[in-house]
Amino acid sequence: MGKEVIDKSEMLSVRKKDDFLKWFREVIKFADMVDTRYGAKGFVVRKPWTMITTNIMYRMFDEEFCKYDHYPAMFPSVIPESNLSKEEEHVKGFSAEVFWITESGSNNTKFEERLALKPTGETAIYPMYAKWIRSYQDLPIKYYQSGTVFRCETKETRPFLREREFMWIEAHCAFATEKEAWEQTKVDQKITKAMLWDKIGLPFMIYKRPQWDKFAGAVDTFGCDVLLVNGRVNQVGSTHMLGTNFAKVFDIKYTDVDEKKKYVYQTCYGPGFSRIIASIICVHGDDKGLVYPFDLAPLQIVIVPIIFKGKEEIVMKSCENLCDKLKSKGFRVKIDSTDWSAGAKFYEWELKGVPLRIEIGPRDIENKQVVIVRRDTGKKSFVAEADILKTISSVEPEILVNLKKKAVDNVKGLIVDCSKFDDLKKSIVGGKIVRCGFCSIEMDGEKCADKIKDACGAEVRGTNEEKSEKVGKGVKCIVCGKDAKHVVYVARDY
Amino acid sequence: MGKEVIDKSEMLSVRKKDDFLKWFREVIKFADMVDTRYGAKGFVVRKPWTMITTNIMYRMFDEEFCKYDHYPAMFPSVIPESNLSKEEEHVKGFSAEVFWITESGSNNTKFEERLALKPTGETAIYPMYAKWIRSYQDLPIKYYQSGTVFRCETKETRPFLREREFMWIEAHCAFATEKEAWEQTKVDQKITKAMLWDKIGLPFMIYKRPQWDKFAGAVDTFGCDVLLVNGRVNQVGSTHMLGTNFAKVFDIKYTDVDEKKKYVYQTCYGPGFSRIIASIICVHGDDKGLVYPFDLAPLQIVIVPIIFKGKEEIVMKSCENLCDKLKSKGFRVKIDSTDWSAGAKFYEWELKGVPLRIEIGPRDIENKQVVIVRRDTGKKSFVAEADILKTISSVEPEILVNLKKKAVDNVKGLIVDCSKFDDLKKSIVGGKIVRCGFCSIEMDGEKCADKIKDACGAEVRGTNEEKSEKVGKGVKCIVCGKDAKHVVYVARDY
Repeated sequence: MGKEVIDKSEMLSVRKKDDFLKWFREVIKFADMVDTRYGAKGFVVRKPWTMITTNIMYRMFDEEFCKYDHYPAMFPSVIPESNLSKEEEHVKGFSAEVFWITESGSNNTKFEERLALKPTGETAIYPMYAKWIRSYQDLPIKYYQSGTVFRCETKETRPFLREREFMWIEAHCAFATEKEAWEQTKVDQKITKAMLWDKIGLPFMIYKRPQWDKFAGAVDTFGCDVLLVNGRVNQVGSTHMLGTNFAKVFDIKYTDVDEKKKYVYQTCYGPGFSRIIASIICVHGDDKGLVYPFDLAPLQIVIVPIIFKGKEEIVMKSCENLCDKLKSKGFRVKIDSTDWSAGAKFYEWELKGVPLRIEIGPRDIENKQVVIVRRDTGKKSFVAEADILKTISSVEPEILVNLKKKAVDNVKGLIVDCSKFDDLKKSIVGGKIVRCGFCSIEMDGEKCADKIKDACGAEVRGTNEEKSEKVGKGVKCIVCGKDAKHVVYVARDY
Repeated sequence: MGKEVIDKSEMLSVRKKDDFLKWFREVIKFADMVDTRYGAKGFVVRKPWTMITTNIMYRMFDEEFCKYDHYPAMFPSVIPESNLSKEEEHVKGFSAEVFWITESGSNNTKFEERLALKPTGETAIYPMYAKWIRSYQDLPIKYYQSGTVFRCETKETRPFLREREFMWIEAHCAFATEKEAWEQTKVDQKITKAMLWDKIGLPFMIYKRPQWDKFAGAVDTFGCDVLLVNGRVNQVGSTHMLGTNFAKVFDIKYTDVDEKKKYVYQTCYGPGFSRIIASIICVHGDDKGLVYPFDLAPLQIVIVPIIFKGKEEIVMKSCENLCDKLKSKGFRVKIDSTDWSAGAKFYEWELKGVPLRIEIGPRDIENKQVVIVRRDTGKKSFVAEADILKTISSVEPEILVNLKKKAVDNVKGLIVDCSKFDDLKKSIVGGKIVRCGFCSIEMDGEKCADKIKDACGAEVRGTNEEKSEKVGKGVKCIVCGKDAKHVVYVARDY
C-alpha cells in the first residue's frame, strides 16, 4: 500500500517565470484550491484550501470595517429589472453581463418582471437608502455586504481572475457633504493598505482611473492594482466617488439642519476576494508552488513523522503530543500520517504552501529536538523541544517580513519611464509597466489610450493616487505628442 | 431639535401573548432588523441588527464544525438543469420551487441549458464528490458551505420564517461505511445542541420525521424543532441520512481496502440561520421587544448620558472614558449621544434587546458610580466605578442562564398527552403540542396524519430522537384506533 513515488501528473511541469499562466493553472489545481469541472461555464468550485483562507480574510476585513463604523447588511441576490435599469450609464456598463431569471417551478411560470442576478449592489441598495434616509441625523450610512456577485463574462474565464460568480465585499456609504464622501475614498484606500500590504504583503499601486475606464455611473474611480512579476497588473479592488449621480436617480434626499432637502453624496468600495487569492498565489508563489503568509494559511504547521521500522509508535506518540500542544495554542496544525514517503509528503506540503514543517524522527526524540523547515526560505533548523513554541512565535512574524521584502524585490525595476511610443511598446512586450506623459485622462484622451491598446494590448491604468506626480516641463503625450497633462501608468492586466 | 416624545408609530402595539404574529412583525420592523419593502416578493433586506448577530453565529458554527474536522468549501449558486434532475425523488421535492435562469445580456441570449438557482446543494456537490472520491483513503469527506439558497415559495412568505432567499449552512459528508454515516447524524445533533441550547438558550426537540415528511431523496430525516410559547414549532435545522441513494444516482464510488468498488454512505445537515434568528426573537423576546443573549448581541452595552444643563461636558467626558475602556476590553459598546430624551433612549434600546444599559449622570459622577440595568430582568444596580468591569464579567454569563431558565419555564406544560382525537384537536387549537400514540410513521401512516392536518392544521412531527419512548401496552393510534407502533408529537409550525 506504500506510495513511494508521487503521481507525476500532480507535479508542477513549468517554472513560474517560464510560463506564468500554465504555472498558475497547475498550482491552483495541484494544491487543490479549485475545481474547474463544475459543468457551468465560468463557475468554479472553491475547495477548503481556498475557503479557509477566504474566510480568514473576511474576518480581517470585518474587523477593519468595524474600526471605521461600517456595519454589515445583506441585500437580496436578485434585482428587479426596473431597478437595475434606472441609472442609464450604470445599466449600460452592466447589462451585457446580466444573468436573467425569467421563470420558476416545474411549469416554468413566467415572472411578470424579470429578476437580474446581482452583478453589483448599487441598484439593489440605493432604492432602500432612499427609504431609510430622512434627516441629516440618519447620515452617514455605512453598510457593507459580503458575498458573491454574478457577471456573465463574455471574455475567457479563468479561476480567481475572471469568473462568472466571484467573492467580494461591497461597501456603500452615503454622506451629507461632498467633503465627507471624498474623505471616505481615502479611508477605503487606508483599509486597502491595512489589508493588502500590512497583513498580506502584496505590493500594489492605487490609480485614479481615466474617465473612460471609471465605474459605470461614477464621478471618479480609484483602482487598486497588485503588481505581478511579469509586468501584468491585477485589479483587486476599487473605490468609487459617486457624487450625487445615483442619489438623483434614486431620489436619495435628506432634510438638513437648515430644513432644506438635499441629495446625499455617495461612495462605494469593493475589495475582490477571488482576485486577492489570485494575487497571493501570483506574488508569493514560487517554483515549488504556493507560499501562504502564516496568518492566512489554511494549515500553518504540518508535522511529518519520520518513520523507521520498530520506532513507529514512539514517533507517532511524540508527533501527537506536539500536535495537541500546538492546537491548544490556537495554531492550525496537523500530522501527515498517510503512508506516503517522507519525500512525497515534503513535496505536497511545499506545493500547498504550508508555512512551517516540523519533522520528528527517532533520533530527534533521542536528542530531545525537532527539525523545523520554513516554506518561504527553505531554511532548516534543529530546535530543542523546550524551545519549539518560542521559535514558532519568533519565526511567525519574520515570514511576512520576508515575503514582503521578496515581493518588493521582485517588482523592483518593473516600472520604467518612457517618452517614445516605440519604447513603450517594447517595454510592455518585455514585461514592464510604463510610466509616461499622456495628453489627458479626461474623455478626450481615450483615442490615445485606444492606440496603445491596439499596439500592445496594454491599458492606461491612470495617475498615481497615493503620490501626486507633476508633469515635467516640455513633456509630451507619448501617443499624440501634444503637451502632456498627466503622468500615467500603462500596463497589461489579466 | 430635541425630541421629547417617541414617534408612536414605532411603539409596539400588542403584547406577545395577545397577537404573536403581529408582535413578531412589529419587533422585527421597529428593532430595525429587516426591511420587507425590497420590491421582489419573498426577498427581504437584512439590516445590521440582524447581520451582526448572523455573522457571530456563522463564526460559532465554523468553530464547532472545525472541532469535528469539517472544512469549508464553496460551490456555485447555480446548478445546470441536467444535474438538478438526476435524482428523481429529490427533483420532485424541489422542482416546484426552482428559480430558472434562462438568458443573459442585453440581447437576452438564451442558454442552451437552463441554470437553476440553488435550492439546496446536493445536486451541485455530489457530481463533484464523484470526481474526487477514488479510494477509501479519500474518505471521509466532510465539507460545508455557508451562504444563501433560493426557493420560490408559493406559500405566504414571512421574514426569517419563510423566505425566497434564506441564510444557512449546509454540511455534506461521505463515508466508507453505513455505521460512520449514522454516527455523523448523531454528531450533527451534538453540534445543534452545542449551538442552539448551550450558546443561544433555545429549547428544542429533535424528531425522527415520518417517512412522508422526510427530505426528498433521503433514507431518514431528523428535524430540530424549537418550541415556541404559543405551541407552534419552528424547524431550525435538519440532518438527513441519505444512505447510498444519491451515491447510486451520481455514481460516487470508492475502491476499498479489499480492492472492491463500493458506494459511499452520505449525510447532510443544514442549520438555518434565518430561522434561528426568528427563534431568538420568538423565544427570548418579551413585551418590550427583543432580548439578545449577551454573546450574540449586535450591541452588548449602551451608555446613556443623563444630561443636566451646565453638566453636559463632564457627563459626556465620563461616558467617553468608560466607552473607550469597555471597547478596549472587546465589548461591543456605544454611547447614545442623540438629542432624544433619556426615556426615549431607554425605550429604543430595550426594544432592540441590548443586554446592558449603563446610565451616567452628574450625581453618579459625584458618587463615583454608574447605574447598570439588565435587559433580561430589568434589574437596576448602582455600581462603583472601580467595580464596573468586574460586575459586567459576572453578569454576562448570568444573562444566558436566566434566559435559558425563562425559556424552559415558558414551555413547561406545553406538551400534553392525549389519547382521543377530540382532545388532540382541542389541545392544538389551545396552543399545545400533543404527544400521542400513532399507528405508523412509515408511509402507511400518512392517511392518519392527513386527517389531523385537515382537522386542526397540525402535523405529526415524528418520534423523539433524543430519548426513545416506548409505546405503552394497549395504546392505540389516536386517529384510526389501530395498535400504535409509535409515540409521536403533533404540532403546528410556521
